[in-house]
Amino acid sequence: MRWNKISDAVVRRLPLYLRVLDQAVRDGDKRLMSSQELGERAGVSPALVRKDLAWFGEFGKQGVGYEVAYLRDELLRILNLDKVVNLAIVGMGALGHALARYSMDRYQRDSYYQLRVAALFDADPEKIGEQVGNLVIQSVDRLEEVLERERIRMVVVAVPASAAQEIVDRCVRAGARAILNFAPVHVTAPEHVYLAHTDLSLELERLAYYLED
Amino acid sequence: MRWNKISDAVVRRLPLYLRVLDQAVRDGDKRLMSSQELGERAGVSPALVRKDLAWFGEFGKQGVGYEVAYLRDELLRILNLDKVVNLAIVGMGALGHALARYSMDRYQRDSYYQLRVAALFDADPEKIGEQVGNLVIQSVDRLEEVLERERIRMVVVAVPASAAQEIVDRCVRAGARAILNFAPVHVTAPEHVYLAHTDLSLELERLAYYLED
Repeated sequence: MRWNKISDAVVRRLPLYLRVLDQAVRDGDKRLMSSQELGERAGVSPALVRKDLAWFGEFGKQGVGYEVAYLRDELLRILNLDKVVNLAIVGMGALGHALARYSMDRYQRDSYYQLRVAALFDADPEKIGEQVGNLVIQSVDRLEEVLERERIRMVVVAVPASAAQEIVDRCVRAGARAILNFAPVHVTAPEHVYLAHTDLSLELERLAYYLED
Repeated sequence: MRWNKISDAVVRRLPLYLRVLDQAVRDGDKRLMSSQELGERAGVSPALVRKDLAWFGEFGKQGVGYEVAYLRDELLRILNLDKVVNLAIVGMGALGHALARYSMDRYQRDSYYQLRVAALFDADPEKIGEQVGNLVIQSVDRLEEVLERERIRMVVVAVPASAAQEIVDRCVRAGARAILNFAPVHVTAPEHVYLAHTDLSLELERLAYYLED
């Protein structure tokens, strides 16, 4: 399994590098970039930039730097963002709505990232049928059917804690391979599925730790 | 500075433990909990639970386990959540709105966490004056004045990338000590301020990495 080879911490930094490189390509002012500059702009030390990228190949030349457009394209490929990735959001409360609008906004304006919000689900009859961007919220009863038909393998779960494990299980059965859980509860998935947890309340609660001198 | 002593990874797990313990106190069915059970319910190995908690004192007894209510109260104290923490959100786009509603919902229903959303800001005249929960969105021109007057030291930044560094700088000057940045850009703060970055697009982009077998 791919995710046993390279640590999650390394993978987490790749989109940061990609963003800096992509901006440099757009600005069109730079063909080469040193690990020093890439690191500064990404908020990572130059040594760590070199170490992270070395996991995936030899991209830079000592004293010359990285070819900006080439490295950007390689990172897109490594992150599987060189081909269209369809994404579903389950749970269209305040957070699900914001995630949907945020992602639609970010990924439809930006041709380099091929992430596309492809389906939205909720269990509430009052929400089903509601339009969000170019999509209509569908009944969660149709989750498996739609994931399979649209070959959606990436799912964002923004349902209440009590429903999260059931939704994750159903996504897994329908072929999901990468799941980002926003529900404030610990859920599990089989080993072949990558399950990440982003809990906004955990972020806020840990932040208070740093208030004390 | 407090955050040099104990690693961020340890601090990140404390709210997870707190949540499990708090639930056990509410359920009222348990006076003691083993590191095994605490770990299972938090999604962390028992050895790591013991190691994490040992940073802060001797909370458990070998073969007996942790006193649930006592450890919960200690974690609240360690995380500074035993006293009211006022929080401001700057930037009331889709994400800021969702963060505000989510936090208001979570922290006003729940008496154990003393996090309170105390102020909302935006630069858009159309948004200023709008009611969100029990608060009214204020002009970002009043940011420093309000942070200082209300002694708000924790700020969530959900503004566009182009405005993020300026907002962080202004929060720092007004006394903020812990800042959570949601803008998709690398920003910096002086050493005495704890600055964390939660970028939803980075989460999504790295997730795609795991789609390939």
